[in-house]
Amino acid sequence: MIRAHMSVSLDGFAAGREITPDQAMGRGGDDLHAWMFASPPDPIDRAIAASTFAAGTVGAVLMGRRTLEVGLAHWGDDGTFGVPCFVVTHKPREPIIKERTTFTFVTDGLRHAVEQANEAADGKHVQVMGADVVRQTLTAGLIDELQITLVPIILGGGATMLGDLEPGAARFEQVEVRSSATVTHLRYRVDRR
Amino acid sequence: MIRAHMSVSLDGFAAGREITPDQAMGRGGDDLHAWMFASPPDPIDRAIAASTFAAGTVGAVLMGRRTLEVGLAHWGDDGTFGVPCFVVTHKPREPIIKERTTFTFVTDGLRHAVEQANEAADGKHVQVMGADVVRQTLTAGLIDELQITLVPIILGGGATMLGDLEPGAARFEQVEVRSSATVTHLRYRVDRR
Repeated sequence: MIRAHMSVSLDGFAAGREITPDQAMGRGGDDLHAWMFASPPDPIDRAIAASTFAAGTVGAVLMGRRTLEVGLAHWGDDGTFGVPCFVVTHKPREPIIKERTTFTFVTDGLRHAVEQANEAADGKHVQVMGADVVRQTLTAGLIDELQITLVPIILGGGATMLGDLEPGAARFEQVEVRSSATVTHLRYRVDRR
Repeated sequence: MIRAHMSVSLDGFAAGREITPDQAMGRGGDDLHAWMFASPPDPIDRAIAASTFAAGTVGAVLMGRRTLEVGLAHWGDDGTFGVPCFVVTHKPREPIIKERTTFTFVTDGLRHAVEQANEAADGKHVQVMGADVVRQTLTAGLIDELQITLVPIILGGGATMLGDLEPGAARFEQVEVRSSATVTHLRYRVDRR
């Protein structure tokens, strides 16, 4: 299954303005992930984070070049993911190996990147990361499930999650909703066309 | 208490493109309210609709001129609301009386309109309607509670609910979340500044 998870502000941004390697989530964007780092963690949030990012369920990761560029420095010596990662890009480039994580660059289009990731995932989920690639895979009908964590903040600009789409660009079916004390986790099945 | 309720698409629109009196919710916008008219109604949706729009809890309504113009023809001979309605506008105009509903035009600014509505509500809630006026009252710190019904459709454009705000334009605290089979109702307390 190809799925995406995004923490999104109430005004629809998956990262704030001015995304740089020093400020990977943009201005104010770190607040989108505060629910993951609360101490003590909310039990609902902990369960969602575990099921979304657990190594046992995720078999491969798909992301854009921009996500790699701003993220790599934060992912540590082992590359964090520990599963094959595929980076959609236009320029061919040698793989980046970070101990147990390999980032492979895919230049022959999104559809092939999804196929490669799906094959590498070997029956587990492919997790799609980054607002741009999520939007592209979604509108190309390549995503099975979209998970949104709705965070009640206003970022006022940045990386839009679902902005600038065509009317009816994707069709969703609400599958599960769980709210913690501070945020709400929504899970949608996406109609592949 | 001043509160607003909006049914909003997953891409953040409270109405579709091309809003006209014949198409009051814009193109595709009627789908935002399908949850209110399902047959049989989902018990959660029914409870939310009842508590949001019940005459016993709403004492006055506040809206913009545009909402009045596109809505009036749809609100029937009795004007639907049955409580004092206040219309924020720049041009003075005689009140419109529809049997049990009076629409009074307020030309001395949003803050005064809210005050007038609150007085008329006589201890009950003031319900704020229409994307523009909701956004204006929200950013002016005049709203106590924002209720969002999140509808998993893509409108691709139209009346943005929270677009084009400044970062941190409003602060929210998640109060209650209830999901039906098709939509999710989120209730936020707004920090008045």
